[in-house]
Amino acid sequence: MFQSFDTMIDPSTGSARCAALRDELARRGLDGFLVPRADAHQGEYVPPSEARLEWLTGFAGSAGMAVVLAREAAIFVDGRYTIQVREQVDTSVFAPQHLIETPPATWLAETVKPGARIGYDPRLHTINGARRLADACADAGAELVAVDDNPLDAVWSDRPASPLGTVTVHPDAFAGEQAAAKIDRMARAVAAARADAFVLTQPDSIAWLFNIRGSDVQHTPLPLSFAVLPAEGRPRIFIDARKLTNVSRDHLEALAVIDGPEALIPALAELGGSGAAVMLDPDWTGAALGEAVAAAGGRVVTGADPVTRAKAVKNAAEIAGARAAHLRDGAAFCRFLAWFDGAVAEGPLDEIAVAEKLESFRAETGALKEISFDSISAAGPNAAICHYRVDRRSNLQIPPDSLFLIDSGGQYQDGTTDITRTIAVGAATQDMKRHFTLVLKGHIAIATARFPAGTSGAQLDALARIALWKAGLDFDHGTGHGVGSYLSVHEGPQRIAKTGHVALEPGMIVSNEPGYYRDGSHGIRIENLELVTPAAMIEGGERPMLGFEALTLAPIDRRLVLGDMLTGEERAWFDAYHARVLADIGPLVDAETRTWLEAVTAPL
Amino acid sequence: MFQSFDTMIDPSTGSARCAALRDELARRGLDGFLVPRADAHQGEYVPPSEARLEWLTGFAGSAGMAVVLAREAAIFVDGRYTIQVREQVDTSVFAPQHLIETPPATWLAETVKPGARIGYDPRLHTINGARRLADACADAGAELVAVDDNPLDAVWSDRPASPLGTVTVHPDAFAGEQAAAKIDRMARAVAAARADAFVLTQPDSIAWLFNIRGSDVQHTPLPLSFAVLPAEGRPRIFIDARKLTNVSRDHLEALAVIDGPEALIPALAELGGSGAAVMLDPDWTGAALGEAVAAAGGRVVTGADPVTRAKAVKNAAEIAGARAAHLRDGAAFCRFLAWFDGAVAEGPLDEIAVAEKLESFRAETGALKEISFDSISAAGPNAAICHYRVDRRSNLQIPPDSLFLIDSGGQYQDGTTDITRTIAVGAATQDMKRHFTLVLKGHIAIATARFPAGTSGAQLDALARIALWKAGLDFDHGTGHGVGSYLSVHEGPQRIAKTGHVALEPGMIVSNEPGYYRDGSHGIRIENLELVTPAAMIEGGERPMLGFEALTLAPIDRRLVLGDMLTGEERAWFDAYHARVLADIGPLVDAETRTWLEAVTAPL
Repeated sequence: MFQSFDTMIDPSTGSARCAALRDELARRGLDGFLVPRADAHQGEYVPPSEARLEWLTGFAGSAGMAVVLAREAAIFVDGRYTIQVREQVDTSVFAPQHLIETPPATWLAETVKPGARIGYDPRLHTINGARRLADACADAGAELVAVDDNPLDAVWSDRPASPLGTVTVHPDAFAGEQAAAKIDRMARAVAAARADAFVLTQPDSIAWLFNIRGSDVQHTPLPLSFAVLPAEGRPRIFIDARKLTNVSRDHLEALAVIDGPEALIPALAELGGSGAAVMLDPDWTGAALGEAVAAAGGRVVTGADPVTRAKAVKNAAEIAGARAAHLRDGAAFCRFLAWFDGAVAEGPLDEIAVAEKLESFRAETGALKEISFDSISAAGPNAAICHYRVDRRSNLQIPPDSLFLIDSGGQYQDGTTDITRTIAVGAATQDMKRHFTLVLKGHIAIATARFPAGTSGAQLDALARIALWKAGLDFDHGTGHGVGSYLSVHEGPQRIAKTGHVALEPGMIVSNEPGYYRDGSHGIRIENLELVTPAAMIEGGERPMLGFEALTLAPIDRRLVLGDMLTGEERAWFDAYHARVLADIGPLVDAETRTWLEAVTAPL
Repeated sequence: MFQSFDTMIDPSTGSARCAALRDELARRGLDGFLVPRADAHQGEYVPPSEARLEWLTGFAGSAGMAVVLAREAAIFVDGRYTIQVREQVDTSVFAPQHLIETPPATWLAETVKPGARIGYDPRLHTINGARRLADACADAGAELVAVDDNPLDAVWSDRPASPLGTVTVHPDAFAGEQAAAKIDRMARAVAAARADAFVLTQPDSIAWLFNIRGSDVQHTPLPLSFAVLPAEGRPRIFIDARKLTNVSRDHLEALAVIDGPEALIPALAELGGSGAAVMLDPDWTGAALGEAVAAAGGRVVTGADPVTRAKAVKNAAEIAGARAAHLRDGAAFCRFLAWFDGAVAEGPLDEIAVAEKLESFRAETGALKEISFDSISAAGPNAAICHYRVDRRSNLQIPPDSLFLIDSGGQYQDGTTDITRTIAVGAATQDMKRHFTLVLKGHIAIATARFPAGTSGAQLDALARIALWKAGLDFDHGTGHGVGSYLSVHEGPQRIAKTGHVALEPGMIVSNEPGYYRDGSHGIRIENLELVTPAAMIEGGERPMLGFEALTLAPIDRRLVLGDMLTGEERAWFDAYHARVLADIGPLVDAETRTWLEAVTAPL
């Protein structure tokens, strides 16, 4: 199984580790130190060797930061983790703070004493992030001091080794564009930005650019590494050679100069020394990298990673792969749904058993490389916790007459999937059905949207919410995120969210997942992945419009739909989508599942 | 009449004036000069004494810039003015450029020779605007040079005198808050921004803050002036004393120190010399003002004008005034609509005659201070020109079987109105009705929207467009703009538009005006002003939601509505709105108009 349901909860170590760190800081003449959750790649997952925040505090969430001062320490987490932080962390040592309402910069500006020297590891903080923290310290009359070797690492005696996940070549048949062609295209983008080189720090950008995949972190085939892409000449990739097979080494050697990760900073200093203009993405790149360029006399050009946008726009092979992956995944998921309906009627079923069963259906495809993320398998009130993740302690038996929510996905070599369905267990209340139908209206509003080129996800987000808003309801997450091609299930730059100001382009994949969460009772989310389709003329129209094509193929529980609340257009979409699910998935599943599928996809 | 239909078109003077300017530049050792349309207040209207761009080039539009080099000259206008610029300007002297696609900064960077010295008047360019232009010149190896006295003014021999419009006191009954209280509230905002003083350059901010009105420009009761609001102590207002009556002088003297406008720069230098932190809004303030502070040793703090937001949130008296103004204006407008239906059936009618008649109905209220802007009175194909303004040359007789569009408003002491209606003349085609109904769906989507606190107009904009987008149509302007209280009909900071990132707050007024424009055939726009209503709980809801209340009261032409295209909710809104129009306006109009009103507000 890819998913583990064990959780380490041991807040008791925090006190001693914090004391050890404080001793080390005192030895170095530092009055404080910042411990972010991020590693040098700023990704969603970090390997155990980089889980500094968890080692120090016990907190295992995917975002956060600790600040340790001589007498005070605080841990900053967002709204998702306000309960979890109190379970995992000794809050008498680390006072919990709200990451958004009282961010570290605000807390520092108010707490730090004038003259204090606060240390930070400039590899782990982005250029923009470090600037905000430095400004905050300056506001308090204190100083933010970059440290060369991390004092936490000095006291982390049982630190795990860095991961050495094998790097494989991502075949051209799936990538759809040879790495050499991508490198050429991106080098031209670097030249167009009037830079001599661009520094890549995001492993998924590197994976895409060189057509490689890795296995250094959970659930995402990332090769932790860095790269430098010059406007002219050979790129350099900085990666531990032990991760390479003969095949992947030959592949990379044909494209780039290979060095170890420790060679990155000297390489940047060398570039800087030559007076080069080096482009860095200030929101994703460690401050140490910019500093290495500048200190050597180079010019730092800040700009968005050109690979991010290029990677987001899928080519024909990636789109074909996404369709194939979704057919495969859809068949497995429909088998799961059919099984669930029977199993839940027969007897007690708990969240872990359901997640395991779903993973087994996916595994039976024979093509599952990983799950895209830990499944959110959430019964009754647990589903009202937006980012709930089941473990052995929280594992709930599915109650009768409730809603069950399952958010999951698979990593296949041809594509990454991500689907959420909310399923009626027994008799749903009228309120549950009303809420479900409101969420469905939002989902359909996105699915049926047409929009001109240049429209961003921020402009579309309200379409997913307006039905809920009119009912006095809302949900506290974005409507959709970008999705990689056998890469991160969350990737940028596009989003359907208040903050998603990047234009949606044909070939982008984005999730469509409005929800509703009733505290202590039920949670609802309906999620399909959508492919942005090319501009097409509409009959009687004047301007070509983009739209969405649902990639995800699985029924939406019609037992929860109040048909009277739907417009004719909404009913037409629902029935047409179900007809497509039956036509596409029906031939791929066993007879029993097909019979079930025919029933649940019948027109409203 | 407030509206004039005469237009000066004389492109022939451009050549000689440009030559005179070039001679003056050569005398001063400048290789070029920038001539913006803006004056030092960056407003929509400028008095004739500040109409430098028009004097030089002949171009009379409301936005643009000319750049005069020794051998080349260009005029930059946006999409609204691409036709007009070719009529009003000698394009052999000033080459037209698209303000958005090739902005002056881009053109300068590509055109200016290395070593060139390009002059600009730093009173007329904002801090941020001047920075962009300076960067562009630097990119070309040239230099942007601030000039103390404007070389264009030196050759502008027949320059009109500055306006001396009388300043009146805006009564507390309409303002709803005494000026002293506003000054105290805004001074605290300046202190909260950690500044010692804020410099006000927008006359509508000054009018609001001091509860005064003026008459220096067309259509908007602005007192052209500047002010400095210290965090502590007496404000200073910089205004020509000849504009003041005894009453308005006494009123201002009780609140502030009064100086002439020429005392502003010395006052800023004095503040700077005292080491003060002086706050300026870099998007609205002349670069010369920041320079005066900085050169004297002061610290420039950039920040948004705090008055802008405060002014946008109307208080109870202003809301009551807006409601009263809209009842009065609605009655006049309904009389006009009833008259129009009869007059257009009887015989030939042209755009000017209609605009004059509408103004006369408004004037008959006895309360009309001004019209809010030149009426857009547009017949048939003229209405497809988004920002059409009728003049004696363009004046069209209203064709049979067409759509007539009229966008107009009144300035009353209790409020400013702005309404657009599109009226069927004879038999409308099915296409016209379909387009009208799509626009109506967008209008209703905004009118019926509910949304949580913190939602911006950018998030709502797509609601007004999605019906059009699904039909392959769109409109090339924002959905709505803020409106002042007996002030500018266009005011910020809120907008319903892709760029409207300011949260909508209860008490703000915003227009709701989706449209559709079929080139060469017809134009449609349906505009009401909407008041943002306070957060209220919705039955069955969990979160309080804001919404809109239509202030504008006038029927929407039901002859153009295809009822089958509306949802039940949309029909219900339409009928309820019409019932309200009849109930509120019916008692205010003559019997004949009331009979007409009863017919046109009958349920669909």
